[in-house]
Amino acid sequence: MSIKINLTKNGPSFSKIVFGTMNWGVWGADLNTNQMLSLIQKSHELGVTTFDHADIYGHYTTEGSFGKALSQNPSIRQDLQLVSKCGIQLITPNRPSTKVHSYDTSRKHIILSLENSLKELGTDYIDLLLIHRPSPLMDPNEIAEAFSRLKQDGKVLHFGVSNFTPSQFELLNSRIPLVTNQIEASILHLHPFLDGSLDLCVQKEIKPMIWSPLGGGKVFTNLEDEQIIRIREVCTKIGKKYGNYGIDQILIAWLLKHPSAMLPVLGTSKISRIESALKVMEIELSTEDWFEIWVASTGEPIP
Amino acid sequence: MSIKINLTKNGPSFSKIVFGTMNWGVWGADLNTNQMLSLIQKSHELGVTTFDHADIYGHYTTEGSFGKALSQNPSIRQDLQLVSKCGIQLITPNRPSTKVHSYDTSRKHIILSLENSLKELGTDYIDLLLIHRPSPLMDPNEIAEAFSRLKQDGKVLHFGVSNFTPSQFELLNSRIPLVTNQIEASILHLHPFLDGSLDLCVQKEIKPMIWSPLGGGKVFTNLEDEQIIRIREVCTKIGKKYGNYGIDQILIAWLLKHPSAMLPVLGTSKISRIESALKVMEIELSTEDWFEIWVASTGEPIP
Amino acid sequence: MSIKINLTKNGPSFSKIVFGTMNWGVWGADLNTNQMLSLIQKSHELGVTTFDHADIYGHYTTEGSFGKALSQNPSIRQDLQLVSKCGIQLITPNRPSTKVHSYDTSRKHIILSLENSLKELGTDYIDLLLIHRPSPLMDPNEIAEAFSRLKQDGKVLHFGVSNFTPSQFELLNSRIPLVTNQIEASILHLHPFLDGSLDLCVQKEIKPMIWSPLGGGKVFTNLEDEQIIRIREVCTKIGKKYGNYGIDQILIAWLLKHPSAMLPVLGTSKISRIESALKVMEIELSTEDWFEIWVASTGEPIP
Repeated sequence: MSIKINLTKNGPSFSKIVFGTMNWGVWGADLNTNQMLSLIQKSHELGVTTFDHADIYGHYTTEGSFGKALSQNPSIRQDLQLVSKCGIQLITPNRPSTKVHSYDTSRKHIILSLENSLKELGTDYIDLLLIHRPSPLMDPNEIAEAFSRLKQDGKVLHFGVSNFTPSQFELLNSRIPLVTNQIEASILHLHPFLDGSLDLCVQKEIKPMIWSPLGGGKVFTNLEDEQIIRIREVCTKIGKKYGNYGIDQILIAWLLKHPSAMLPVLGTSKISRIESALKVMEIELSTEDWFEIWVASTGEPIP
Repeated sequence: MSIKINLTKNGPSFSKIVFGTMNWGVWGADLNTNQMLSLIQKSHELGVTTFDHADIYGHYTTEGSFGKALSQNPSIRQDLQLVSKCGIQLITPNRPSTKVHSYDTSRKHIILSLENSLKELGTDYIDLLLIHRPSPLMDPNEIAEAFSRLKQDGKVLHFGVSNFTPSQFELLNSRIPLVTNQIEASILHLHPFLDGSLDLCVQKEIKPMIWSPLGGGKVFTNLEDEQIIRIREVCTKIGKKYGNYGIDQILIAWLLKHPSAMLPVLGTSKISRIESALKVMEIELSTEDWFEIWVASTGEPIP
Repeated sequence: MSIKINLTKNGPSFSKIVFGTMNWGVWGADLNTNQMLSLIQKSHELGVTTFDHADIYGHYTTEGSFGKALSQNPSIRQDLQLVSKCGIQLITPNRPSTKVHSYDTSRKHIILSLENSLKELGTDYIDLLLIHRPSPLMDPNEIAEAFSRLKQDGKVLHFGVSNFTPSQFELLNSRIPLVTNQIEASILHLHPFLDGSLDLCVQKEIKPMIWSPLGGGKVFTNLEDEQIIRIREVCTKIGKKYGNYGIDQILIAWLLKHPSAMLPVLGTSKISRIESALKVMEIELSTEDWFEIWVASTGEPIP
């Protein structure tokens, strides 16, 4: 079973499950080089070849840690798809020049940030670069210029955005083709199903990448919450119906059923969670089960 | 005076007042075959030739009752425009296989539902088929395929939607031409005047059909409500000014003044209400009167 | 330094700072003819050549007062750009026929109102005519007809709107080209930065005119308000950093940094405020400073 998918007609081919690296470094598990290498290799063996980064992860250190690990086995690079993001300016001792937590989508910052990501990751190019957050100050012409320059130089193959509204997406997409919008969506975050974000992806045949696909873990910790109780109850029942699937697996299957063909970004440092998510591909959730889960979240019948 | 109107340039020609059948059957008046036939024939004589159905009305029985009545006078069919809807799955003993109140916009369901509607209505074709509710799971390509097949087979002449947001309308309309969006609008439901729904209809020259054009009757029952008191007072005054018109008539005239050229769907089983609505065509409400009614509803002056 | 800017590629060339006349007449300072003439001439000398009017200002009297002043020095007219607006019907002894505060965007009203504005302003043409408020009843075809007629007759050179949502803008712009949307925006009114209004301007390369660019003066009067305290503190600090600039100047610089290239409409009758605003052109606010001001307004860090 192929677990590859094209983000758009002429877009990059990614693994349907994307490995999010936010918690690999000092913001999370703080893996050492051998542990990271092991994670990359095991993931590669499983066919999960797309890794999601951002310049800022680990206060600008996690790309470097990943790159150091990858340099131990450089031949694997050609099989991987590396995603990074830029545009946020974090206050951290690692960037003493930044005085205000802010966004910078200037041509200069985008290029500098990407070139730094290449250096940190130890690679000549990345497959996809995203603007991390929409800035009220973003100039689409300037961003398009920066993107064109990076493409021309072979440093970035494709471009996208993250956390953009439909209106912001249309704005930048009117200047340069975007292949994805990486947004938050989960059974605990239904807005994109209703506010036009996913409509636009389906209309333009651009596949969304999904962060926090499990709602940031609340389904597994807020056990007293009535919404969570309802969701867990329904997903447990449905999990048993389809085999022996866990709540997390049913919730990923729930996302995968959407016609936008979402790519969940799993922000974990455990290979077991990747293996678990891959098993979800076997599940073909019925429409009725999908709506039962939806209603468990909203707490009210559909009209 | 013609009371016909084209939904779009090449769309179907409907009567400006549409007879809604939701309450003809077991969900409402529970008319017998003779009563229904009489209603259809009287409406036909009045020029109100468009009848609005849905597969689910009367728990999937009202189309059948209508069809049985119509079969008593089959020659009348060619003068009528029949609208139906599909996409909602209701839990009812009449559909024991449905376990979850949900939406189904699959190719298979749309075709099956429509073919059943044809059988129930006792007709070879309907003039317009609507997707009853936007489903978060709807795949516009699949809906377009189903619609194309039904059109090719001569089973449905035109297609539309109901209760779609502008974004959802654009999504499906990008795949197959839609001739209407049947939405709720009334002096008690002003959202579509402000949220872009009617803007889109006007921009695309697609005439909206309007359900609950009188706000579901609340104007005639919630007599203690301050908003209702204001509306009734203003409409009573204006009704006298234009002749001897009732509040219901002024409220329909109020809708008809909108440049989108709305088609109110009157959900009644009384021919007198249709006759009353037809008299509204004589009224040309002034712009000032229109705003006085608007302000009676909102309770605050326009900016 | 040129302070001219084109509203669109083929649009009119306006001064970057627009002089708003709303408070010149009986709604505000009630200037006499000599005082108005002096204001016009001084503004002209400063290069602030664009004057923003509306038919209704001063209960339909301020255009007349301005025209009377301008007639004392008619040769200056060719250097000025005059903007006016129509569409609101005010209740005032000056318009006894208006019984309801309402909007009128009929062909007849637009043309009559504009012709009256020409007479009052004592000019053969105006440079820009705006629909003052979006009316739920506006028919874009009818507005386009009126605009085309006025353009053909040489009475209005360009057309735009005011206070339109993106959806309303698209609707009218689909029928006739619009060169601006005059909207409210300021550090106290951030909606247009987030609701797609400014996105649309940037996407279509249509420059917005901005009313209440300083939030209607609240920054200078609500001194106990926590939001105001934060804004004043940050702007005071930044004002010192760039030179000796006041809070009002920093807040205009803050608007001018936006890539939509906003034209602030200063609703004042004091030439000193125009002089003060012109000095803002020297400031190139840094992105970090811009975000520090944004956060002072919202009271929470950006994501």
